Amino acid sequence: MPERTSQIDDPQLAAQGEAAFRWFAERMPVQRALGERFGRTRPLTGRRVAVCLHVEPKLVAWIDVLIAGGVEALAVVGCIGSTQAATAAYLATRPNVTVYAREADDWRTHNDYITEVLSSPWEILVDNGSSLTTRWHESPPAWVPLGATEETRTGKLRLAATGLPVRFPVIVVDDSPLKRTVENSLGVGQSVVDGILRATSLILGGKRVLVMGYGWCGQGISRRLLGMGAIPMVCEVDPIRRLQAKLEGNLVGSPDELLPLADLVITVTGRDHALTLDHVPLLKKDAILCNAGHFSTEIDVEAFGAASTKTWEIRKGITAYEIGNRKFFLLCQGHLVNLAAADGNPIEVMDLGLALQALSMVEISLAGGRLPQGVQPVPEAVNRATAELCLAHF
Amino acid sequence: MPERTSQIDDPQLAAQGEAAFRWFAERMPVQRALGERFGRTRPLTGRRVAVCLHVEPKLVAWIDVLIAGGVEALAVVGCIGSTQAATAAYLATRPNVTVYAREADDWRTHNDYITEVLSSPWEILVDNGSSLTTRWHESPPAWVPLGATEETRTGKLRLAATGLPVRFPVIVVDDSPLKRTVENSLGVGQSVVDGILRATSLILGGKRVLVMGYGWCGQGISRRLLGMGAIPMVCEVDPIRRLQAKLEGNLVGSPDELLPLADLVITVTGRDHALTLDHVPLLKKDAILCNAGHFSTEIDVEAFGAASTKTWEIRKGITAYEIGNRKFFLLCQGHLVNLAAADGNPIEVMDLGLALQALSMVEISLAGGRLPQGVQPVPEAVNRATAELCLAHF
Amino acid sequence: MPERTSQIDDPQLAAQGEAAFRWFAERMPVQRALGERFGRTRPLTGRRVAVCLHVEPKLVAWIDVLIAGGVEALAVVGCIGSTQAATAAYLATRPNVTVYAREADDWRTHNDYITEVLSSPWEILVDNGSSLTTRWHESPPAWVPLGATEETRTGKLRLAATGLPVRFPVIVVDDSPLKRTVENSLGVGQSVVDGILRATSLILGGKRVLVMGYGWCGQGISRRLLGMGAIPMVCEVDPIRRLQAKLEGNLVGSPDELLPLADLVITVTGRDHALTLDHVPLLKKDAILCNAGHFSTEIDVEAFGAASTKTWEIRKGITAYEIGNRKFFLLCQGHLVNLAAADGNPIEVMDLGLALQALSMVEISLAGGRLPQGVQPVPEAVNRATAELCLAHF
Amino acid sequence: MPERTSQIDDPQLAAQGEAAFRWFAERMPVQRALGERFGRTRPLTGRRVAVCLHVEPKLVAWIDVLIAGGVEALAVVGCIGSTQAATAAYLATRPNVTVYAREADDWRTHNDYITEVLSSPWEILVDNGSSLTTRWHESPPAWVPLGATEETRTGKLRLAATGLPVRFPVIVVDDSPLKRTVENSLGVGQSVVDGILRATSLILGGKRVLVMGYGWCGQGISRRLLGMGAIPMVCEVDPIRRLQAKLEGNLVGSPDELLPLADLVITVTGRDHALTLDHVPLLKKDAILCNAGHFSTEIDVEAFGAASTKTWEIRKGITAYEIGNRKFFLLCQGHLVNLAAADGNPIEVMDLGLALQALSMVEISLAGGRLPQGVQPVPEAVNRATAELCLAHF
Repeated sequence: MPERTSQIDDPQLAAQGEAAFRWFAERMPVQRALGERFGRTRPLTGRRVAVCLHVEPKLVAWIDVLIAGGVEALAVVGCIGSTQAATAAYLATRPNVTVYAREADDWRTHNDYITEVLSSPWEILVDNGSSLTTRWHESPPAWVPLGATEETRTGKLRLAATGLPVRFPVIVVDDSPLKRTVENSLGVGQSVVDGILRATSLILGGKRVLVMGYGWCGQGISRRLLGMGAIPMVCEVDPIRRLQAKLEGNLVGSPDELLPLADLVITVTGRDHALTLDHVPLLKKDAILCNAGHFSTEIDVEAFGAASTKTWEIRKGITAYEIGNRKFFLLCQGHLVNLAAADGNPIEVMDLGLALQALSMVEISLAGGRLPQGVQPVPEAVNRATAELCLAHF
Repeated sequence: MPERTSQIDDPQLAAQGEAAFRWFAERMPVQRALGERFGRTRPLTGRRVAVCLHVEPKLVAWIDVLIAGGVEALAVVGCIGSTQAATAAYLATRPNVTVYAREADDWRTHNDYITEVLSSPWEILVDNGSSLTTRWHESPPAWVPLGATEETRTGKLRLAATGLPVRFPVIVVDDSPLKRTVENSLGVGQSVVDGILRATSLILGGKRVLVMGYGWCGQGISRRLLGMGAIPMVCEVDPIRRLQAKLEGNLVGSPDELLPLADLVITVTGRDHALTLDHVPLLKKDAILCNAGHFSTEIDVEAFGAASTKTWEIRKGITAYEIGNRKFFLLCQGHLVNLAAADGNPIEVMDLGLALQALSMVEISLAGGRLPQGVQPVPEAVNRATAELCLAHF
Repeated sequence: MPERTSQIDDPQLAAQGEAAFRWFAERMPVQRALGERFGRTRPLTGRRVAVCLHVEPKLVAWIDVLIAGGVEALAVVGCIGSTQAATAAYLATRPNVTVYAREADDWRTHNDYITEVLSSPWEILVDNGSSLTTRWHESPPAWVPLGATEETRTGKLRLAATGLPVRFPVIVVDDSPLKRTVENSLGVGQSVVDGILRATSLILGGKRVLVMGYGWCGQGISRRLLGMGAIPMVCEVDPIRRLQAKLEGNLVGSPDELLPLADLVITVTGRDHALTLDHVPLLKKDAILCNAGHFSTEIDVEAFGAASTKTWEIRKGITAYEIGNRKFFLLCQGHLVNLAAADGNPIEVMDLGLALQALSMVEISLAGGRLPQGVQPVPEAVNRATAELCLAHF
Repeated sequence: MPERTSQIDDPQLAAQGEAAFRWFAERMPVQRALGERFGRTRPLTGRRVAVCLHVEPKLVAWIDVLIAGGVEALAVVGCIGSTQAATAAYLATRPNVTVYAREADDWRTHNDYITEVLSSPWEILVDNGSSLTTRWHESPPAWVPLGATEETRTGKLRLAATGLPVRFPVIVVDDSPLKRTVENSLGVGQSVVDGILRATSLILGGKRVLVMGYGWCGQGISRRLLGMGAIPMVCEVDPIRRLQAKLEGNLVGSPDELLPLADLVITVTGRDHALTLDHVPLLKKDAILCNAGHFSTEIDVEAFGAASTKTWEIRKGITAYEIGNRKFFLLCQGHLVNLAAADGNPIEVMDLGLALQALSMVEISLAGGRLPQGVQPVPEAVNRATAELCLAHF
C-alpha cells in the first residue's frame, strides 16, 4: 500500500487538540476499559479499517482503542461541518492513521476523500450516513470488506435507496435497543433541554412546549421537559404513539390546535417540513422554534427566509423573522439544537455508542466471513457486553 | 373527683378494637419511642388531661404514650362522625381513661360530653376544632388549665371568633412548619390521590385535573397528580401563589377558562362554595367533582340537590347529578375525599402529628405556668425534637 | 344446537349485578362507541362465540358489544377465583348467552365447563390463559373454529408448551404495542401503587422500594413510585434493562446489595421464586413484600409458611412472618397486589383491552379463513383503530 | 449638582452593548409593561436615584423603566467582577445617567465610586450587598434619602452587622415570597442544572448527586435533578428540613455517609467551608464538586490548592486536584456554578426581580416619608402587583 499523507488544516494544532481531549479521555471509562482489554486480546490484529465519523475529541479515545486492538492501518474521513481542526491534527499524530478532515470540507472535498480512501483495500468499514458503503456498492472496487458498521438510520435508508443488493455484512448500530433507550431517549432528552437553555436563557418552568413527533427522541424530550417544569404538548401522526403521549401526561392535538398555544416548538419527526410557511399564521406571538431531528429540513427554513419581510440575528444562534403579521424566533437556523447550541449527546452516551461500534467490529473481524451478507442488527451478545461494560464503569 | 363511666356503644367490642389496632401499633415507631422515653422520664406525672380527638386506632397508640408519661386521669371525647365503636371500647379498657364517644354522636351529644368533662378540673386540654377551649372561654369554670393544644386552623379561628381574651396558653399545632410540609403537602397529596383512585377506579394518566386552591395542600396534590401522569390545572385567587402554580408546571386560569377542560375537579380552597350552581353550566360532560378541603361546604352540595332533575348513587361513594343539560358526578357527597374514600393521612404522618401534640403537652406541663397566655405556635424545640424522632424511626 | 342452561350461583342476584355494572357502563365509552358501530355494521352477524374471561362488571359491557354486532350464540366460562356471582347472574339475563361461572369454581369445575362448551361447534374462541384453545388442540373435536384470540402471554406459552402445531389463527393480544405501553406500563404502574396504598395506609414519600424486574410492568411501577416521592431501586438480570434502569434514576444492584436497604419489595419478574427463603436473612427489619407479577409463585410463600416460627394476620391482607431473627410482612399472600388489594387495572385500560379483543374478532370473522394459521400478533390496523377509538372517547 | 462624567472602559463599545441588549429587551415583557405604565403615571418624577447593581444587559431594560418613570438623575455603580464593558458604554448613552463600572474594578475602585456617588444627595438608593446603605450609615452625609431597597440577604446581614440604627426605610427584596419560590427555588434550580451541563457535558441520568443544604435553593436544585433523572441525596443540619428532604424522595444522611456515594456534590448551605480538606478522604473516585451558594467560600478552595500534590485545568472551568490518594474535579473554582458556567437566573426571573425593585421604589417615592424607618419586607401590595404583572406578561 502506498504511503499516505493526512489532509488536515494545520498539523501545528496537535497540542491544542491534545488539551481539548483531556476531559474526554478522563470521562470515557468504557473506552479506557476496552483499550486495556483489546491491548491484551488484540482482536483486530492486522486489520485495515476505514472510518467515516465526526472528527471531534471523543473520536480520539475510540481510535486509540482500535490501535490497542491491533489495527494495522486506519483511514479516518471526517463528516461535513463537524470537523475540529485541532482534533484532526492531534489524531494525525497517531501511527498508521491517515486523517482526511478539514473544517471547510464540503460535499466535493468529502467525496474526493471517499474516492481516495476506497482506492485501497480495507477489511472493515465504519460508516456514518453510508458514505463509504454506498459508494462501494455504486462503484464496486476489486476488493470486498469483511463487513461494515453503520451508525445511523439515515445511512441505512441511503443504502437501501440504491436498490442494490448488499454484498457484505452491514451492522446497523441505530437498531440497537441500547441506542434507543440510552442515546435516543435519555441522551437526546437531556441534550435538547441543554441546547434550548444555552440558546435562550429563558425559564422552562410553566412554558408550553410543543414536541412534534413522539418517537424515542420525542418521548425523551417530553419527559425531561416535564422534569424541568414545562407543560409538554405533542403532535404525532401515529395513533398508537399519540395515545401513549396522551396517557403519559402530554396535551395531545393537531398542529392547528396546539401551535397557537405553544411558547416553544421542537420538531423531531424524522421527516421533512414538519413546520412550514402554512403553520406561520398559527404561531403564538413571539414563539420560539427549533429542531431536534437529524435533518435541518424538518423546518422549512428556506421558505421562511423567502417569505419574511424582515429577518435579523437577535442573538447569537437566534434569528428573528417577521412574516405577515407574525414575529417568531428560530434557533440555530433549524440545525439540531442539541449539537448546534450545546455539545450534543452527553459523554457517557458517546462512550456507549463507540463501544457498540468497536465490539461490532470485533464480531466482524472474528467471524471471518461467517456473518450473513446484508443489513443486520447489532448482535445480542454485543448489546449485552456493551451494557455490562457501561454498568461496570459509569 | 367522682368516679366516671365511659359512654360508648358496646364494651364487648374491645377485642375487635384490639385487632384493628395491631397494624397501627406496629407502624407507629415514633409513638413507641416516645412511650419508652416517657416511661423513663415521666414528664406528665400526675397530670389530668382532657382530650377531644378522633377516636380511631391511631389515637390508642398516643393515649398509651400519655399513660406511660404518668398522666393520672384522662377524659377522651370523640369528634362527630369519626368514632369507631370498637376502638372506643378498646380505649375504655385502659386504666383511668374515660371515653365519651359513640358512632351516632351528633352536636347535641357532643356538647353534652363537653359539658360533663368541663365540670371537673383539668390541667391540660388537647383539642381539635376548639370544642373544649372555646367552651371553657364562653362559660369559664372555676379552674384554669396550665395550657391547651389545638390541632386545626379551624379551631384557632373558632376561638378567635369568640372575641374573648385567651386566658391560658394555647399551642396551635397547625402552624408548625412540619405540619405544613409533611402533613398538608406530602400527606394530603398522597391521600387525595389514594381516595380518588379508590372511589373511581379510573386512570389518572392524561386526565386534566383542576385543583382549586394552591395552598400547601393544593401544592401537594398538584405534585402527586403530576407524578401519576395527570395534567394539573390550578385556579387560585392569590396572584403570588397563582404565579408559583404557573411556573411549577400547572395550567393556570380562571374557573371560567378551566372548568370546561377539566375531567376531574378538586376543591381545596379553605372557603365555602368554591364550586356552586353557577359553575355547573361550565362543567365538561361527565366531569367528576370532589373536595379535599376541611369542610364539605366547599362544594355547594345542597344547592346541587335542590336544582337537580335527577340524582342517583351510581356507585358506592359516587352520586350522579343531572342539572339542566349537564350530567356530572360527585364523590363522597363532598366530604374530604381522602378520609371518606380512603384512610386519611398516611400512618407516619399521624405518628408525627401526635408526637407534636405529646411534646407540646410536655412543654405545657414542665413550664408550669411560665408560657405566655394566648395562642402561640409550637415551640421551635418541639418541632426540632419531633423531626429528629421521625428521622430516627421512619 | 341444544338449549343450554347457565351454571351460576343464583339468578336472583341479577339486579345486584346490574347495580354494580352502572359505573362501568358509564365509564367505558369505547365499548359504547363500538356497540353503536357494531349495531350498524353487524360485523359478527350469525357468529357463534365461546369466551373464557373474568366474569366481573367490565365484561358485561363487552358482551353487549358482541351482541350488538350480531353474535348468534355466546358461551361464557369464568376464570377460577375471579367470578362475581351477581355479575354472572346479570350476564345470564342476556339472550343467547350461556354463563358457566360460580364463585367457588376450581380446576375441576372449570375443566368440566370447558369440556361442555367444546362439545358444540364455535366459530370464534376468546381465551384467557388458553383454556379453550389448548384443550381444543389436545382433544380436537370434529369442528375447527375460524380463529381465536388469546389475552395473555401465559396462554401463549401454555399453548406453545403443548408442542402441537396450531391448527387455526390465534391472535395474541399481549403482544400489542398498545397493551405494552398502556396496560403493562401505565395501567400496572398506577394500580400497583393503588394496591400498596390500600393495603398498608403508609406513606410512599421517602420509602426505598425495590422493584425486582424491569420489564414493561417494572418500568411503569418504578416511574409511578418516583412520582409519589419514593426512591426506586431495581434488580434486573438483563444487563440492557439494568443499564436503562440505572440511567432512568433507579438505584441498581443485586438482591444482596439492595434487599437490606428496601422498606418495600415488589416482585414483577415473570418467573418463579424471585424471592425465596434464602433472601429472608437479607431483609431489612419490618420490610414489606408484595408481588405484581402474574403468578403468586414469584414469592415462595409456601416456604415462608413452612419455615416461620410465627405467622399471623396483622391486618386484612397483611401477614406477618417471623423466620429466624427476622420479622417481615407479606401483602395478599403474594397474589397480584393490584388485583388483590385494589381493583386491578383502571377502567380505561380494560376498555382499551376489550376493544382490541372485539376488533381482533372482527378481523377473524371478516377474513373468513384467509388469516394464516398459528399464533400471530394483533393486526396493525386493529392496533391503530383501537388507539383512534381511545383517543376519540377518553 | 456638578456635571459628572461616567467612568467606563470605552464609550465606543456602546453599539456592541446595544446588540447584546436586543434579545433581553425582547424577552423582558414586564419591564416593557412597566415602562409604558410609568411613562403615563410618572411615579418617579424628579427623583434622584443612586443604584449599585450588576452592569449587564438586563439592567438596561430596568434603567429605561426608571427613566420613563421620570427619574431626574441616576448614578449607577457596578458590582465587582460582573461588569460588561459594552453594556456600561451603552448605558452611559442614556441622558442623566452616570455610570461607574469598569471590568477590572476591585474593592478599591468600587469604594472610590461609592465615595464619589455619596458626595451628592440622592432620594432613593437601590443596593446590592449594601454598598451604598452601609457606607451611608458608617459615614453619614448631610442628606437623608427617602428610602432604599436591598436585593440580597447578604446586604441585609452586612447592614445589621454594623450595629447602627437604620435611619431610613430599607426594603429587603430577598424576603419576598416571590423571590423565594420563583428566584431561589425555580430560578436557581434550573440554572444550576444548566451550569453543570455546560461545564461537564456529562449525563445527569443515574448520577448520585449530593446537595448540601436544603433551603429554598437546595429544594429547587433537588427537584430539577430528579426531573433530569439523577438520584438526589441531601445533607442538612436542620432536622425539620432534613425530614422534609427525606419524605420528598432524597437519600438523606451525614456527609460521612453520603460523600462516598456521590458522583457530584453541590454546596448551597449559605455558610463557609461546607466542604473542606477533612472531606477529601471521603470523596468517591473522580467526584465532581461545585458550589451554588452565594459565596465561593462554601468550598475551601484555598486549602485544596495548598494541600494538593497536583492541580491542573483539565477543561475550561474544570480544575483537577490530586490530594493524597484522591483525585477530584472542581467546577469554576467554587464560584456560583449557575453564573460562572451558565448565564445565571433565567431572564423571566430577572424580569420579576427588577419589577419588585421598581415597584418598591415607587412605594418609597409616593410614601414621601410615611414608611417606617429600618429594614422591612417588600409591601404585600408590591408582591401582588408584581405577580399580576408576571402573570399577564409571561
